[in-house]
Amino acid sequence: MAQANLKEQLVDAATDLFHRQGYNATSVDDIVRGAHVPKGSFYNHFESKEALGLEVVRRYAASTPLDLLAEPDVPALDRLRAHLERMVERTVGWGVGRGCVLGNFATELASQSPVITAAVRDSFAAWADALAPVIAELPGQHDPQAVADYIVNGLEGAYARAKVIGDRRPLDQFLAVTFATVLR
Amino acid sequence: MAQANLKEQLVDAATDLFHRQGYNATSVDDIVRGAHVPKGSFYNHFESKEALGLEVVRRYAASTPLDLLAEPDVPALDRLRAHLERMVERTVGWGVGRGCVLGNFATELASQSPVITAAVRDSFAAWADALAPVIAELPGQHDPQAVADYIVNGLEGAYARAKVIGDRRPLDQFLAVTFATVLR
Repeated sequence: MAQANLKEQLVDAATDLFHRQGYNATSVDDIVRGAHVPKGSFYNHFESKEALGLEVVRRYAASTPLDLLAEPDVPALDRLRAHLERMVERTVGWGVGRGCVLGNFATELASQSPVITAAVRDSFAAWADALAPVIAELPGQHDPQAVADYIVNGLEGAYARAKVIGDRRPLDQFLAVTFATVLR
Repeated sequence: MAQANLKEQLVDAATDLFHRQGYNATSVDDIVRGAHVPKGSFYNHFESKEALGLEVVRRYAASTPLDLLAEPDVPALDRLRAHLERMVERTVGWGVGRGCVLGNFATELASQSPVITAAVRDSFAAWADALAPVIAELPGQHDPQAVADYIVNGLEGAYARAKVIGDRRPLDQFLAVTFATVLR
Protein backbone atom coordinates (compact mmCIF):
# COMPACT_ATOMS: atom_id res chain seq x y z
CA MET A 1 0.00 0.00 0.00
CA ALA A 2 2.75 2.41 1.02
CA GLN A 3 4.73 1.12 -1.97
CA ALA A 4 1.84 1.85 -4.35
CA ASN A 5 1.54 5.32 -2.89
CA LEU A 6 5.22 6.05 -3.44
CA LYS A 7 4.90 4.97 -7.07
CA GLU A 8 1.84 7.20 -7.56
CA GLN A 9 3.67 10.11 -5.96
CA LEU A 10 6.57 9.63 -8.38
CA VAL A 11 4.26 9.50 -11.42
CA ASP A 12 2.31 12.58 -10.29
CA ALA A 13 5.45 14.59 -9.58
CA ALA A 14 7.06 13.55 -12.87
CA THR A 15 3.91 14.40 -14.85
CA ASP A 16 3.84 17.85 -13.31
CA LEU A 17 7.56 18.52 -13.85
CA PHE A 18 7.80 17.07 -17.38
CA HIS A 19 4.70 19.02 -18.37
CA ARG A 20 5.97 22.25 -16.86
CA GLN A 21 9.66 22.24 -17.75
CA GLY A 22 10.23 19.37 -20.20
CA TYR A 23 11.93 15.99 -20.00
CA ASN A 24 15.61 16.89 -20.30
CA ALA A 25 15.33 19.85 -17.93
CA THR A 26 13.93 17.52 -15.22
CA SER A 27 16.30 15.27 -13.28
CA VAL A 28 15.54 12.21 -11.15
CA ASP A 29 16.59 14.42 -8.21
CA ASP A 30 13.90 16.97 -9.13
CA ILE A 31 11.31 14.19 -9.32
CA VAL A 32 12.08 12.60 -5.94
CA ARG A 33 12.14 16.06 -4.35
CA GLY A 34 8.81 16.92 -6.01
CA ALA A 35 7.33 13.59 -4.88
CA HIS A 36 8.67 13.96 -1.32
CA VAL A 37 10.10 10.44 -1.42
CA PRO A 38 13.60 9.24 -0.53
CA LYS A 39 15.87 9.11 -3.57
CA GLY A 40 16.71 5.47 -2.96
CA SER A 41 13.08 4.49 -3.56
CA PHE A 42 13.04 5.74 -7.17
CA TYR A 43 14.78 2.70 -8.62
CA ASN A 44 12.56 0.32 -6.64
CA HIS A 45 9.71 1.54 -8.83
CA PHE A 46 11.28 2.56 -12.12
CA GLU A 47 14.30 1.21 -13.96
CA SER A 48 15.12 4.65 -15.35
CA LYS A 49 13.80 8.16 -15.96
CA GLU A 50 12.80 6.89 -19.39
CA ALA A 51 10.63 4.12 -17.89
CA LEU A 52 8.88 6.75 -15.77
CA GLY A 53 8.51 8.99 -18.86
CA LEU A 54 6.79 6.11 -20.65
CA GLU A 55 4.36 5.67 -17.74
CA VAL A 56 3.63 9.42 -17.80
CA VAL A 57 2.79 9.27 -21.53
CA ARG A 58 0.50 6.25 -21.04
CA ARG A 59 -1.46 7.86 -18.22
CA TYR A 60 -1.66 11.24 -19.90
CA ALA A 61 -2.93 9.66 -23.13
CA ALA A 62 -5.46 7.54 -21.22
CA SER A 63 -6.82 10.75 -19.65
CA THR A 64 -7.75 12.21 -23.08
CA PRO A 65 -11.46 13.06 -22.69
CA LEU A 66 -12.92 11.00 -25.57
CA ASP A 67 -16.31 10.40 -23.90
CA LEU A 68 -17.97 13.42 -25.54
CA LEU A 69 -17.27 11.88 -28.97
CA ALA A 70 -19.55 8.94 -28.12
CA GLU A 71 -22.44 10.87 -26.53
CA PRO A 72 -25.69 9.32 -27.80
CA ASP A 73 -28.34 11.41 -29.61
CA VAL A 74 -25.94 14.33 -30.23
CA PRO A 75 -25.16 15.33 -33.85
CA ALA A 76 -21.61 14.48 -34.99
CA LEU A 77 -20.60 18.12 -35.45
CA ASP A 78 -21.70 18.99 -31.91
CA ARG A 79 -19.83 16.00 -30.47
CA LEU A 80 -16.65 17.06 -32.29
CA ARG A 81 -17.05 20.62 -31.07
CA ALA A 82 -17.70 19.56 -27.46
CA HIS A 83 -14.66 17.27 -27.49
CA LEU A 84 -12.28 19.81 -29.03
CA GLU A 85 -13.53 22.60 -26.76
CA ARG A 86 -12.88 20.38 -23.74
CA MET A 87 -9.37 19.60 -25.04
CA VAL A 88 -8.72 23.34 -25.28
CA GLU A 89 -10.21 24.20 -21.88
CA ARG A 90 -8.26 21.41 -20.18
CA THR A 91 -4.99 22.88 -21.47
CA VAL A 92 -6.02 26.44 -20.61
CA GLY A 93 -6.85 25.20 -17.09
CA TRP A 94 -3.35 23.78 -16.66
CA GLY A 95 -1.87 26.97 -18.10
CA VAL A 96 -1.15 27.36 -21.82
CA GLY A 97 2.57 27.62 -21.08
CA ARG A 98 2.60 23.89 -20.36
CA GLY A 99 1.25 22.83 -23.73
CA CYS A 100 0.50 19.15 -24.29
CA VAL A 101 2.74 16.43 -22.83
CA LEU A 102 2.45 14.40 -26.06
CA GLY A 103 3.31 17.32 -28.32
CA ASN A 104 6.17 18.42 -26.06
CA PHE A 105 7.66 14.92 -25.98
CA ALA A 106 7.12 14.52 -29.75
CA THR A 107 9.48 17.35 -30.56
CA GLU A 108 11.87 16.98 -27.63
CA LEU A 109 12.40 13.20 -27.59
CA ALA A 110 11.96 11.89 -31.15
CA SER A 111 15.72 11.72 -31.65
CA GLN A 112 16.43 10.58 -28.11
CA SER A 113 13.97 7.96 -26.83
CA PRO A 114 12.52 5.44 -29.32
CA VAL A 115 10.38 3.89 -26.57
CA ILE A 116 8.71 7.16 -25.49
CA THR A 117 8.38 8.28 -29.11
CA ALA A 118 6.57 5.04 -30.01
CA ALA A 119 4.13 5.60 -27.14
CA VAL A 120 3.51 9.20 -28.27
CA ARG A 121 3.01 8.03 -31.87
CA ASP A 122 0.48 5.38 -30.75
CA SER A 123 -1.34 7.89 -28.51
CA PHE A 124 -1.80 10.36 -31.38
CA ALA A 125 -3.00 7.51 -33.62
CA ALA A 126 -5.54 6.31 -31.03
CA TRP A 127 -6.89 9.84 -30.64
CA ALA A 128 -7.23 10.27 -34.43
CA ASP A 129 -8.89 6.83 -34.64
CA ALA A 130 -11.50 8.02 -32.13
CA LEU A 131 -12.18 11.17 -34.17
CA ALA A 132 -12.34 9.55 -37.63
CA PRO A 133 -15.69 7.67 -37.35
CA VAL A 134 -17.38 10.81 -36.00
CA ILE A 135 -15.94 12.88 -38.86
CA ALA A 136 -17.17 10.18 -41.28
CA GLU A 137 -20.73 10.99 -40.15
CA LEU A 138 -20.44 14.52 -41.56
CA PRO A 139 -21.63 14.94 -45.17
CA GLY A 140 -19.00 15.34 -47.88
CA GLN A 141 -15.97 14.13 -45.88
CA HIS A 142 -14.04 12.12 -48.44
CA ASP A 143 -11.11 11.08 -46.26
CA PRO A 144 -12.19 11.10 -42.57
CA GLN A 145 -8.93 9.51 -41.39
CA ALA A 146 -6.79 12.20 -43.06
CA VAL A 147 -9.04 14.92 -41.63
CA ALA A 148 -8.85 13.32 -38.16
CA ASP A 149 -5.04 13.37 -38.33
CA TYR A 150 -5.17 16.95 -39.60
CA ILE A 151 -7.27 17.98 -36.57
CA VAL A 152 -4.95 16.24 -34.09
CA ASN A 153 -1.86 17.79 -35.66
CA GLY A 154 -3.48 21.21 -35.98
CA LEU A 155 -4.44 21.31 -32.32
CA GLU A 156 -0.93 20.20 -31.33
CA GLY A 157 0.49 23.04 -33.43
CA ALA A 158 -1.91 25.49 -31.78
CA TYR A 159 -0.80 24.26 -28.33
CA ALA A 160 2.83 24.98 -29.29
CA ARG A 161 1.95 28.45 -30.58
CA ALA A 162 -0.08 29.23 -27.43
CA LYS A 163 2.93 28.13 -25.41
CA VAL A 164 5.30 30.65 -27.02
CA ILE A 165 2.72 33.45 -26.99
CA GLY A 166 1.59 32.66 -23.44
CA ASP A 167 -2.01 33.21 -24.50
CA ARG A 168 -5.02 31.04 -25.45
CA ARG A 169 -5.70 32.94 -28.69
CA PRO A 170 -4.20 30.29 -31.05
CA LEU A 171 -6.48 27.69 -29.41
CA ASP A 172 -9.60 29.80 -29.95
CA GLN A 173 -8.50 30.49 -33.53
CA PHE A 174 -7.98 26.77 -34.04
CA LEU A 175 -11.60 26.08 -33.04
CA ALA A 176 -13.00 28.99 -35.07
CA VAL A 177 -11.16 28.20 -38.32
CA THR A 178 -11.62 24.42 -38.00
CA PHE A 179 -15.40 24.72 -37.62
CA ALA A 180 -15.65 27.36 -40.36
CA THR A 181 -13.72 25.34 -42.95
CA VAL A 182 -12.59 21.76 -42.21
CA LEU A 183 -15.48 20.45 -40.11
CA ARG A 184 -18.98 21.55 -41.06
CA MET B 1 38.61 36.67 -41.05
CA ALA B 2 39.67 33.59 -39.13
CA GLN B 3 37.55 34.92 -36.23
CA ALA B 4 34.48 35.27 -38.49
CA ASN B 5 35.03 31.75 -39.76
CA LEU B 6 35.16 30.33 -36.23
CA LYS B 7 31.90 32.06 -35.42
CA GLU B 8 30.24 30.69 -38.58
CA GLN B 9 31.52 27.22 -37.76
CA LEU B 10 29.97 27.45 -34.30
CA VAL B 11 26.61 28.62 -35.67
CA ASP B 12 26.57 25.92 -38.35
CA ALA B 13 27.47 23.15 -35.91
CA ALA B 14 24.93 24.37 -33.34
CA THR B 15 22.17 24.60 -35.95
CA ASP B 16 22.87 21.04 -37.03
CA LEU B 17 23.01 19.66 -33.47
CA PHE B 18 20.04 21.61 -32.06
CA HIS B 19 17.97 20.60 -35.10
CA ARG B 20 18.97 16.96 -34.86
CA GLN B 21 18.94 16.29 -31.11
CA GLY B 22 17.39 19.36 -29.42
CA TYR B 23 18.72 22.17 -27.26
CA ASN B 24 19.05 20.53 -23.86
CA ALA B 25 20.57 17.35 -25.26
CA THR B 26 23.36 19.42 -26.89
CA SER B 27 26.23 20.72 -24.76
CA VAL B 28 28.76 23.44 -25.52
CA ASP B 29 31.29 20.57 -25.68
CA ASP B 30 29.24 18.90 -28.42
CA ILE B 31 29.12 22.18 -30.35
CA VAL B 32 32.86 22.95 -30.23
CA ARG B 33 33.60 19.34 -31.19
CA GLY B 34 31.09 19.55 -34.08
CA ALA B 35 32.57 22.88 -35.19
CA HIS B 36 36.17 21.59 -34.93
CA VAL B 37 37.18 24.67 -32.93
CA PRO B 38 39.09 24.88 -29.64
CA LYS B 39 36.73 25.02 -26.65
CA GLY B 40 38.32 28.22 -25.39
CA SER B 41 37.14 30.07 -28.49
CA PHE B 42 33.44 29.51 -27.80
CA TYR B 43 33.13 32.29 -25.23
CA ASN B 44 35.04 34.73 -27.45
CA HIS B 45 32.05 34.59 -29.79
CA PHE B 46 29.05 33.81 -27.60
CA GLU B 47 28.29 34.74 -24.03
CA SER B 48 26.38 31.51 -23.48
CA LYS B 49 24.72 28.55 -25.19
CA GLU B 50 21.51 30.59 -25.03
CA ALA B 51 23.08 33.48 -27.00
CA LEU B 52 24.12 30.97 -29.68
CA GLY B 53 20.60 29.45 -29.60
CA LEU B 54 19.17 32.91 -30.26
CA GLU B 55 21.48 33.36 -33.25
CA VAL B 56 20.44 29.95 -34.59
CA VAL B 57 16.73 30.94 -34.38
CA ARG B 58 17.37 34.25 -36.15
CA ARG B 59 19.25 32.65 -39.03
CA TYR B 60 16.85 29.75 -39.35
CA ALA B 61 13.85 32.11 -39.44
CA ALA B 62 15.58 34.37 -41.98
CA SER B 63 16.04 31.34 -44.25
CA THR B 64 12.24 30.75 -44.48
CA PRO B 65 11.58 30.70 -48.25
CA LEU B 66 9.00 33.51 -48.52
CA ASP B 67 9.96 34.56 -52.08
CA LEU B 68 7.35 32.32 -53.74
CA LEU B 69 4.61 34.23 -51.90
CA ALA B 70 5.55 37.41 -53.78
CA GLU B 71 5.97 35.92 -57.28
CA PRO B 72 4.40 38.37 -59.76
CA ASP B 73 1.62 37.26 -62.16
CA VAL B 74 0.91 34.05 -60.24
CA PRO B 75 -2.58 33.55 -58.70
CA ALA B 76 -2.67 33.76 -54.89
CA LEU B 77 -3.69 30.12 -54.43
CA ASP B 78 -0.77 28.92 -56.58
CA ARG B 79 1.67 31.13 -54.65
CA LEU B 80 0.44 29.71 -51.35
CA ARG B 81 0.71 26.16 -52.65
CA ALA B 82 4.21 26.71 -54.05
CA HIS B 83 5.38 28.23 -50.76
CA LEU B 84 3.89 25.51 -48.53
CA GLU B 85 5.14 22.74 -50.81
CA ARG B 86 8.63 24.20 -50.61
CA MET B 87 8.37 24.37 -46.79
CA VAL B 88 7.45 20.68 -46.77
CA GLU B 89 10.15 19.61 -49.23
CA ARG B 90 12.82 21.54 -47.34
CA THR B 91 12.01 19.63 -44.15
CA VAL B 92 11.80 16.30 -45.98
CA GLY B 93 15.20 17.07 -47.49
CA TRP B 94 16.73 17.56 -44.03
CA GLY B 95 14.99 14.43 -42.78
CA VAL B 96 11.51 14.54 -41.20
CA GLY B 97 13.00 13.32 -37.91
CA ARG B 98 14.51 16.78 -37.42
CA GLY B 99 11.25 18.67 -37.63
CA CYS B 100 11.38 22.47 -37.54
CA VAL B 101 13.88 24.31 -35.33
CA LEU B 102 11.21 26.89 -34.40
CA GLY B 103 8.59 24.28 -33.49
CA ASN B 104 11.12 22.19 -31.58
CA PHE B 105 12.33 25.19 -29.56
CA ALA B 106 8.71 26.37 -29.01
CA THR B 107 7.84 23.26 -27.04
CA GLU B 108 11.24 22.58 -25.49
CA LEU B 109 12.25 26.07 -24.35
CA ALA B 110 9.07 28.06 -23.59
CA SER B 111 9.47 27.46 -19.85
CA GLN B 112 13.23 27.78 -19.92
CA SER B 113 14.48 30.61 -22.12
CA PRO B 114 12.37 33.79 -22.42
CA VAL B 115 14.85 35.28 -24.91
CA ILE B 116 14.77 32.32 -27.34
CA THR B 117 11.00 31.95 -26.89
CA ALA B 118 10.47 35.63 -27.81
CA ALA B 119 12.54 35.13 -30.98
CA VAL B 120 10.52 32.02 -31.90
CA ARG B 121 7.26 33.89 -31.23
CA ASP B 122 8.34 36.79 -33.46
CA SER B 123 9.50 34.40 -36.21
CA PHE B 124 6.13 32.64 -36.32
CA ALA B 125 4.36 36.03 -36.37
CA ALA B 126 6.53 37.28 -39.25
CA TRP B 127 5.80 34.14 -41.24
CA ALA B 128 2.04 34.48 -40.65
CA ASP B 129 2.23 38.17 -41.57
CA ALA B 130 3.77 37.20 -44.92
CA LEU B 131 0.97 34.69 -45.58
CA ALA B 132 -1.98 36.87 -44.52
CA PRO B 133 -2.05 39.37 -47.44
CA VAL B 134 -1.85 36.51 -49.96
CA ILE B 135 -4.71 34.69 -48.19
CA ALA B 136 -6.66 37.98 -48.25
CA GLU B 137 -6.58 37.82 -52.07
CA LEU B 138 -8.65 34.61 -52.02
CA PRO B 139 -12.42 35.08 -52.29
CA GLY B 140 -14.50 34.60 -49.13
CA GLN B 141 -11.66 34.74 -46.58
CA HIS B 142 -13.20 36.68 -43.71
CA ASP B 143 -10.23 36.64 -41.34
CA PRO B 144 -6.99 36.23 -43.34
CA GLN B 145 -4.78 36.80 -40.29
CA ALA B 146 -6.48 34.04 -38.28
CA VAL B 147 -6.24 31.69 -41.27
CA ALA B 148 -2.55 32.58 -41.73
CA ASP B 149 -1.88 31.70 -38.08
CA TYR B 150 -3.90 28.51 -38.49
CA ILE B 151 -1.74 27.47 -41.46
CA VAL B 152 1.52 28.20 -39.62
CA ASN B 153 0.40 26.27 -36.53
CA GLY B 154 -1.05 23.42 -38.57
CA LEU B 155 2.19 22.91 -40.49
CA GLU B 156 4.15 23.01 -37.22
CA GLY B 157 1.84 20.33 -35.81
CA ALA B 158 2.32 18.24 -38.95
CA TYR B 159 6.12 18.55 -38.59
CA ALA B 160 5.85 17.22 -35.02
CA ARG B 161 3.65 14.31 -36.11
CA ALA B 162 6.01 13.48 -39.02
CA LYS B 163 8.85 13.50 -36.50
CA VAL B 164 7.29 10.83 -34.27
CA ILE B 165 6.11 8.72 -37.22
CA GLY B 166 9.40 9.11 -39.08
CA ASP B 167 7.47 9.59 -42.31
CA ARG B 168 6.38 12.50 -44.56
CA ARG B 169 2.73 11.40 -44.66
CA PRO B 170 1.44 14.03 -42.16
CA LEU B 171 3.05 16.74 -44.29
CA ASP B 172 1.38 15.52 -47.48
CA GLN B 173 -1.94 15.21 -45.61
CA PHE B 174 -1.47 18.76 -44.34
CA LEU B 175 -1.18 20.06 -47.91
CA ALA B 176 -4.07 17.94 -49.22
CA VAL B 177 -6.56 18.84 -46.47
CA THR B 178 -5.51 22.51 -46.32
CA PHE B 179 -6.07 23.02 -50.06
CA ALA B 180 -9.32 21.02 -50.05
CA THR B 181 -10.88 22.97 -47.16
CA VAL B 182 -9.12 26.02 -45.67
CA LEU B 183 -7.49 27.56 -48.74
CA ARG B 184 -9.42 27.45 -51.98
